[in-house]
Amino acid sequence: MLHLSDAMRLAVEASEQVRGTTSPNPPVGAVILGVGGNVVGVGATQPPGGPHAEVVALNEAGAQAFGGTAVVTLEPCDHFGRTPPCTRALIESGVAQVHYAVADPVAEASGGAQTLAHAGIVVTAWHDPAPVTQGPLRAWLHRQRTGRPHVTYKYAASLDGRCAAADGSSQWISGVESRARDRLERARVDAIVVGTGTVCADDPWLTARAPDGTLADHQPIRVVMGVRELPSGSRVNDDAAPTRIVRSRDPMDVIEALDDCVDVVVEGGPTVAGAFLRAGLVDRITAYVAPIVLGAGPAAVADAGVGNITDAIRFQCESVDRLGDDVLISLIPR
Amino acid sequence: MLHLSDAMRLAVEASEQVRGTTSPNPPVGAVILGVGGNVVGVGATQPPGGPHAEVVALNEAGAQAFGGTAVVTLEPCDHFGRTPPCTRALIESGVAQVHYAVADPVAEASGGAQTLAHAGIVVTAWHDPAPVTQGPLRAWLHRQRTGRPHVTYKYAASLDGRCAAADGSSQWISGVESRARDRLERARVDAIVVGTGTVCADDPWLTARAPDGTLADHQPIRVVMGVRELPSGSRVNDDAAPTRIVRSRDPMDVIEALDDCVDVVVEGGPTVAGAFLRAGLVDRITAYVAPIVLGAGPAAVADAGVGNITDAIRFQCESVDRLGDDVLISLIPR
Ligand SMILES: NC(=O)c1ccc[n+]([C@@H]2O[C@H](COP(=O)([O-])OP(=O)(O)OC[C@H]3O[C@@H](n4cnc5c(N)ncnc54)[C@H](OP(=O)(O)O)[C@@H]3O)[C@@H](O)[C@H]2O)c1
Ligand SMILES: NC(=O)c1ccc[n+]([C@@H]2O[C@H](COP(=O)([O-])OP(=O)(O)OC[C@H]3O[C@@H](n4cnc5c(N)ncnc54)[C@H](OP(=O)(O)O)[C@@H]3O)[C@@H](O)[C@H]2O)c1
Repeated sequence: MLHLSDAMRLAVEASEQVRGTTSPNPPVGAVILGVGGNVVGVGATQPPGGPHAEVVALNEAGAQAFGGTAVVTLEPCDHFGRTPPCTRALIESGVAQVHYAVADPVAEASGGAQTLAHAGIVVTAWHDPAPVTQGPLRAWLHRQRTGRPHVTYKYAASLDGRCAAADGSSQWISGVESRARDRLERARVDAIVVGTGTVCADDPWLTARAPDGTLADHQPIRVVMGVRELPSGSRVNDDAAPTRIVRSRDPMDVIEALDDCVDVVVEGGPTVAGAFLRAGLVDRITAYVAPIVLGAGPAAVADAGVGNITDAIRFQCESVDRLGDDVLISLIPR
Repeated sequence: MLHLSDAMRLAVEASEQVRGTTSPNPPVGAVILGVGGNVVGVGATQPPGGPHAEVVALNEAGAQAFGGTAVVTLEPCDHFGRTPPCTRALIESGVAQVHYAVADPVAEASGGAQTLAHAGIVVTAWHDPAPVTQGPLRAWLHRQRTGRPHVTYKYAASLDGRCAAADGSSQWISGVESRARDRLERARVDAIVVGTGTVCADDPWLTARAPDGTLADHQPIRVVMGVRELPSGSRVNDDAAPTRIVRSRDPMDVIEALDDCVDVVVEGGPTVAGAFLRAGLVDRITAYVAPIVLGAGPAAVADAGVGNITDAIRFQCESVDRLGDDVLISLIPR
């Protein structure tokens, strides 16, 4: 028998597995508990056109769903899109209870809770939506709310804030655990943005890879911003992943060029980072702080338009974790 | 009735209260539990010439110590210094058991455990000395081991590693909680080192103060290194605390000038920080990372002698804490 909070955790984990593969649909997770409280089905949103999380989980549960409980990360949808409404599948399955973490913000899809309640199902909004709103549904909810992709500025730096050494070397600032997490995370976002400076300096692949180097199934779009011509043979131009060149220094042009994206990561050097921060276009900072001192080399952020401490661009910590030898700090605008 | 581990925690806290006031003696804490396990005495080392922790705690306990347990952070001393040996006081008190966290590394004071055992007391070395060795006795143990004061490099920086903004302003990079901790910590060390550059830029007092501004009883020695003349009227030259001017750019000269110190904090700007780090003279880094981006201004550390990532000066995290909005990272050399 599973506690409801364990079931919700399982649903969040299931949805995290499909993050990056469901756009423009939200990555949702669902768990079905039988009458006795045991897990009889687990599901997550399939790629566009495929079944939603609830349907995957209900299919696995079959008749065992009858009288049971559905635990889902997002309010079940109530409309015919490319698939029939999940509310119908839930009602037909005979579940007695539904717990959902986050209300659906999309007008045409919402009303699911009400429909379920009308059908006699006990529907409860979960008391702690944070693991979902700050986790797998963060970017999608942001996009629904603002109409823009969610932008994470991600960097690795030494204790003294250098993103490269004096000779320009920036590879391996962070440790193996951080890099593994980072490569994995790439497979779960829609686009990665750098400036021409980073391409010229590091010639990065910007692909999502497993620790052994094999390419992940889902690759983010590689985006290079800046006006200069890239060196011929730059790795970002290989065919391992799609690439978009945005011949501009204006971050808004990048946002517009990524109109079809939900989750974007800026991995640029200090110039691009400063431009996005100055424009107020950073929705989250993911900082990998390595326990090393360099004492020379470029700072992680340049030209953010700040002259004195009072004008500093302020964030607030969302979480702080140790990852191998590094410290991983996640921040959101204040 | 108190668990032994709670008693040890209490002893550590008691010793933490006197840290900075006992040099050259170690700041030790002692707790006496009565036969029933209740606390009957708590003590910490008094200033040089005054009673040691065990004696303070035993005095409070009086006859209630008989048959009880003494919990101390350092192996009780066994020699006549300015005060009689603590082993004698413990034996005379009639305690049945003694638990100590750290063996005394000083040859002439050690042997305490053996003396107590010979007197029929059950003596036990504590299983987890880390809260003591990394806490109140850290600097003193370092001094015993190396003959040199323990040096902490402490700084506050933005996410992008700037220790001041473009206009040179560095006050209030960190938040109120960090600053309060920092002012309190100053009252517990022997000396604070800065360079002439910091004095010229910030004209700091470098005193230990309560949040309301009142000076603490114990003030660290203010140390300024560098060859130039300080501006007349510099605040470090007021009479709120002693000041030593070391007319040199060599960190070893500073170490030698602080021959009488156990616990030294380098609060200097990037130049002095780089010099201490390059010389391998930093035993701990205490970094206050503020959740702000500056994008301009000096990096926390300059000229550390590192040309590429491979040559980075490597540390390892000892602890990571959130302090108000800031992240406090404590690191030791790898
Ligand atoms: N540790 C890390 O996380 C990390 C990550 C990435 C890079 N790096 C390091 O960063 C360094 C490269 O720094 P970088 O600043 O040159 O890289 P960048 O920010 O990726 O690229 C900067 C270039 O992009 C163009 N650009 C785009 N937007 C701009 C704007 N708003 N204003 C001005 N120019 C803009 C400019 O070139 P055009 O003339 O073509 O317009 C500019 O020179 C390398 O040492 C690299 O190793 C470190
Ligand atoms: N956020 C923080 O935690 C923090 C703390 C302190 C300072 N700061 C900021 O740091 C900035 C000042 O930086 P800074 O580097 O000038 O300060 P600094 O390191 O305190 O002082 C540097 C000066 O000390 C002398 N010096 C001492 N040792 C030296 C060495 N090994 N090599 C060369 N010179 C040496 C030199 O002056 P002589 O010519 O006199 O020898 C040098 O100019 C200010 O903006 C201040 O606000 C920030």
